Amino acid sequence: MAHALPQRILVAPSGFKESLDADAVAAAIGAGVRRALPGAMVKAVPIADGGEGTAKTLAAATGGRLIPVTVTGPVGQPVEAHYAMLGGDASGTAVVEMAAAAGLRLVPHDQRDPGLTTSRGVGELIAAAIDAGAQQILVGCGDSGTSDGGMGALQALGVRILDAVGNEVPAGGNHLCRIDRLDLSGLHPALADRSVPLTLALNQHNVLTGARGVARVFGPQKGATAQQVEAMSAGFEHWAAVLRRDALDSARTTDFATAPGTGASGGLGAGLAAVGASLLPRFEALLDSGLAGIDLDGLLRGADLVITAEGAIDFQTPRGKVPAEVARRAALHGVPVVALAGTLGRGCRDVHDIGIDAIASIVPIPMTLREAVDDGERLLVEAAERFMRTIILGASMAAARLSARDAW
Amino acid sequence: MAHALPQRILVAPSGFKESLDADAVAAAIGAGVRRALPGAMVKAVPIADGGEGTAKTLAAATGGRLIPVTVTGPVGQPVEAHYAMLGGDASGTAVVEMAAAAGLRLVPHDQRDPGLTTSRGVGELIAAAIDAGAQQILVGCGDSGTSDGGMGALQALGVRILDAVGNEVPAGGNHLCRIDRLDLSGLHPALADRSVPLTLALNQHNVLTGARGVARVFGPQKGATAQQVEAMSAGFEHWAAVLRRDALDSARTTDFATAPGTGASGGLGAGLAAVGASLLPRFEALLDSGLAGIDLDGLLRGADLVITAEGAIDFQTPRGKVPAEVARRAALHGVPVVALAGTLGRGCRDVHDIGIDAIASIVPIPMTLREAVDDGERLLVEAAERFMRTIILGASMAAARLSARDAW
Repeated sequence: MAHALPQRILVAPSGFKESLDADAVAAAIGAGVRRALPGAMVKAVPIADGGEGTAKTLAAATGGRLIPVTVTGPVGQPVEAHYAMLGGDASGTAVVEMAAAAGLRLVPHDQRDPGLTTSRGVGELIAAAIDAGAQQILVGCGDSGTSDGGMGALQALGVRILDAVGNEVPAGGNHLCRIDRLDLSGLHPALADRSVPLTLALNQHNVLTGARGVARVFGPQKGATAQQVEAMSAGFEHWAAVLRRDALDSARTTDFATAPGTGASGGLGAGLAAVGASLLPRFEALLDSGLAGIDLDGLLRGADLVITAEGAIDFQTPRGKVPAEVARRAALHGVPVVALAGTLGRGCRDVHDIGIDAIASIVPIPMTLREAVDDGERLLVEAAERFMRTIILGASMAAARLSARDAW
Repeated sequence: MAHALPQRILVAPSGFKESLDADAVAAAIGAGVRRALPGAMVKAVPIADGGEGTAKTLAAATGGRLIPVTVTGPVGQPVEAHYAMLGGDASGTAVVEMAAAAGLRLVPHDQRDPGLTTSRGVGELIAAAIDAGAQQILVGCGDSGTSDGGMGALQALGVRILDAVGNEVPAGGNHLCRIDRLDLSGLHPALADRSVPLTLALNQHNVLTGARGVARVFGPQKGATAQQVEAMSAGFEHWAAVLRRDALDSARTTDFATAPGTGASGGLGAGLAAVGASLLPRFEALLDSGLAGIDLDGLLRGADLVITAEGAIDFQTPRGKVPAEVARRAALHGVPVVALAGTLGRGCRDVHDIGIDAIASIVPIPMTLREAVDDGERLLVEAAERFMRTIILGASMAAARLSARDAW
């Protein structure tokens, strides 16, 4: 019967926003699984999604470290940010998490004017990582608080952004329309000569301009009025044309207006593409590129069962969240997938359609969100144990081969 | 593979106090199970525990009906109570739920003086059931609000309880000490001639007197002060002696002070034993006596899996709660048991030691107790579906026979 129980269990969760980082989630689930099945081989691979927590998760997953850097925040304030120098197979890669320098959480509620915020801190992090010896840079895009087309990041990397009379244009999406040209002569040499490749992990559905452009899709949630949205759209159109003309030679073929990912993180995708960055779908960049040192597919190949997790599982989960990506890959290897969630919201059953076989909540008892967040680790350990015991029960029943019983 | 999945699923839950009756719980779990496993045979057998909801649960389980009766409440007020006339194989049995006439919930908080409350309404329900043609009476003890030694119930059944000068002693445990003798000449004839057997379903650990006597164990929670507890203990000692001397001939061998169950429902066990009632452990009475028309063991014999449930699963569950009883019986038939709970409290893992293989909470998301109670049915359906999907996943994995995989 032991043979019929899952023995190789891969724990591949996302972080629980505002509660636990992905590596803490993975450790808690692993502990719960071992309680239920002490003989199991459990491997944990916390999955970053490019947004908040990405640098920390990848540092933890590869045995790397976080390097603190004080940078210019999205409203110009100093911000204690960080990038990760990865370890293990990924050593030499620095991970810059956009949100650590210019995330929405760093924009005070009363200053949420997307026309004024700057991505300068992201460029400062990239420069710091290069200067510290990084051989390649992976930039995680997600949870951004800026909409400047990457203008601030370019400025921090040495690009001069000039108006028609040759003055530097100040930071912020409001000023995109005033830009006349880029001067790349001061661009950081490691980017200019492409000795340090820059790869962006982003959501490919985000494009810079048009009806599904970043201004129209994300402007309102970053605080833009309807009028501002139209002004931003016009600014991005202009910005795409300037980039097209003035980008590094090597980047000239990119369509900065509508290529996949150009709109990521308020146009950071387009801006950094102009200095040679590769724009990759986030999970391709984070899991397949080799840059991040995570070999999810290799781990899936040998697993009996995958346990993934996310803070909330609901109707949005199938639209490219970590559990959906884990399930997609697990299906290729024929490995069953289950998912734990801090909250099971509306439409959570939809995940059965994308190959997640079973789901469970970590909440054992009526409690407030605050209590659940504060006690997340214990709840997760205990829920993972219960979940695993339930799976084991099913496996034991089948292994005992249900005998043909009397009429019932 | 279909062969390896559970096909015969017995749903045997308790009610969720203050939220759902046992039959509603059983129906909701059954609906969830069918969502996950449309081909399954699901049988529902709501389990009563003798306390609140017992009459309704057994009426629902047997296709019987509830008969409304207005009786004297525990503080003398009129109370809309009921008893059940069971159907099916149990037709002829009336179920009198002690709590429906004299439950703690019927005692207003500002009148919780255990020296004054009366079990008279319980006797009135018994008399009404006999007069309506019941051939046997099953009295569920539990959740009581009285501590009168069954004095009030005896009075309602025609027993005169007299003081030394031949006056009737008024209702209430305070007056037990004044009792000189019983006059059974007016006892309801169906009890006097034993043509209608009376069976009490009770907790055998409750005895009338001594260190573990009902006054000391339950007095405080029914509102007694330390002084009252001692007075009640003395009253019960006296009462036991009177009963011993004056009981129906047929009951003379009972030790009314310390026999198992004499202390049940504030001494109702001892009082009714004096007029010939049999005192049975509650699950023996409710499940094995045949009186209640429930054949749990017969259903277990053919089942692949049992799902039980209770409002709360915690350290108290192994101490004789419905899930513990279901698990004990299921073990005799080698049937695995899982349990759903409204709340998983402290010590809930202890239930694995008594043969409950897996547990799950119905709470999908942080919420208030009020929200969980109000939405209990939906939460239960959805949780049962998730639970069943998880079991099925385990069974499917084992059925697919985990192949020896590459090194991992």
